Amino acid sequence: MTEQLTLYSAKVCPYAQRVEIALQESKLDFTRFEVDLQNKPEWYAPKVNPASKVPAVSYGGPKVSADQPSPESQKIAESLVLLEFVADLSGKLLPKDPVQRARVRFFIDAISNSVVPLFYSVAVRGESPEKLYKGLETLQSLLPAEGFAAGPEFTIADAAIAPFLGRFDLVLKNDLGAYEEGEGVKVYEVVQTDPKFSRYRKYFADLKSRDSFKKTFDENYLKTVSAARFAPLRAEKKASKGSL
Amino acid sequence: MTEQLTLYSAKVCPYAQRVEIALQESKLDFTRFEVDLQNKPEWYAPKVNPASKVPAVSYGGPKVSADQPSPESQKIAESLVLLEFVADLSGKLLPKDPVQRARVRFFIDAISNSVVPLFYSVAVRGESPEKLYKGLETLQSLLPAEGFAAGPEFTIADAAIAPFLGRFDLVLKNDLGAYEEGEGVKVYEVVQTDPKFSRYRKYFADLKSRDSFKKTFDENYLKTVSAARFAPLRAEKKASKGSL
Ligand SMILES: [Ca+2]
Repeated sequence: MTEQLTLYSAKVCPYAQRVEIALQESKLDFTRFEVDLQNKPEWYAPKVNPASKVPAVSYGGPKVSADQPSPESQKIAESLVLLEFVADLSGKLLPKDPVQRARVRFFIDAISNSVVPLFYSVAVRGESPEKLYKGLETLQSLLPAEGFAAGPEFTIADAAIAPFLGRFDLVLKNDLGAYEEGEGVKVYEVVQTDPKFSRYRKYFADLKSRDSFKKTFDENYLKTVSAARFAPLRAEKKASKGSL
Repeated sequence: MTEQLTLYSAKVCPYAQRVEIALQESKLDFTRFEVDLQNKPEWYAPKVNPASKVPAVSYGGPKVSADQPSPESQKIAESLVLLEFVADLSGKLLPKDPVQRARVRFFIDAISNSVVPLFYSVAVRGESPEKLYKGLETLQSLLPAEGFAAGPEFTIADAAIAPFLGRFDLVLKNDLGAYEEGEGVKVYEVVQTDPKFSRYRKYFADLKSRDSFKKTFDENYLKTVSAARFAPLRAEKKASKGSL
């Protein structure tokens, strides 16, 4: 008999989407529960994740309703821990060879420390788009000539980066972000056309075309949420520039 | 036939010691090469690790001298990637059960984000020892009532934290660090005697008593190196205080 698995997620959260993508790819059965991060259920922190963040998983124990988590199930948190958990449980999404597994984990480590933060420095703090180009070049240098992050098979490395590339694409395309009005669209144009970024474009297209991505990325919802989030950042940035 | 494995390490580096501890515990055969971080061999970055850091591993390929690495061997870097690699190769240091594996990885994630940085904020930036006590309390909250980080068996979680606890102990005991003279010894006394920290003391004693720790922690060397590193930090801190 298979143990129950419940994912506590939130559509807005890229870290949660990582795990949801991995679960979709793994073909494991799971229940998904949307946590309203603006108004968390009062049972969430005490009964699921003391850090009160998503993603978190309950695993095993009795089959209960997701909003009445049992003390008998195991609770696990942190997106990268959960990616490995999904791979361990399913026997998929990680190669068997130790060196290939190390390549997957090195990719995740590298994008967590360079690509992802560079993107946020542009979108959230309105820093120079050069940083973002640099992040894309780093990403490209980590990718093989074709296929996914660690070869022809989709792995947890791809699940780890996909939510961030999706948000980066959406934010630029819709000119959201702390930078000046019009700047996002200009950068988007460069990223879409410059031959320098062709490997990135192919990789992102490959990720986006998968069911695991389509099912877990609600573009309209994210557009609305991001617009509301970034408008005040742009105003702030503008105001602080004006005062210099 | 077993593949060759060479660890590029440096006695001064806690990240490298993590991997060396894991290799010692794994009983895998390996060659150790000490990299002089102040004066790196010119072949190190191009032939072993483009990021020019330790730890790094070469694995497989022809049996060559460590200072003449072959392009045919696999090169792997990053301490946490290497801990998983050692576990994968040896089949030791990680439980088989997916939930238990997740506990090991959660521990590593938690100490990387909270315990380790808090220690450095005290030793390197001379911030309040309260931060360090907080870090020890967090560590204690992650530990089971007895045994190692994830139960009775030593795992990569213990290899990940041990080098930092060793340095923290050494720095305080010898009153090294950016804080005021005498402050380290005072904090050390509290950590050694306060009943609040008894779980930490037992855990650190358990780690320290292992051959894997003894063989990889050169106390006299580290004392000399740390004294040279921290003296200017204390002077700086003092000077900046004086100028306030
Ligand atoms: Ca983390």
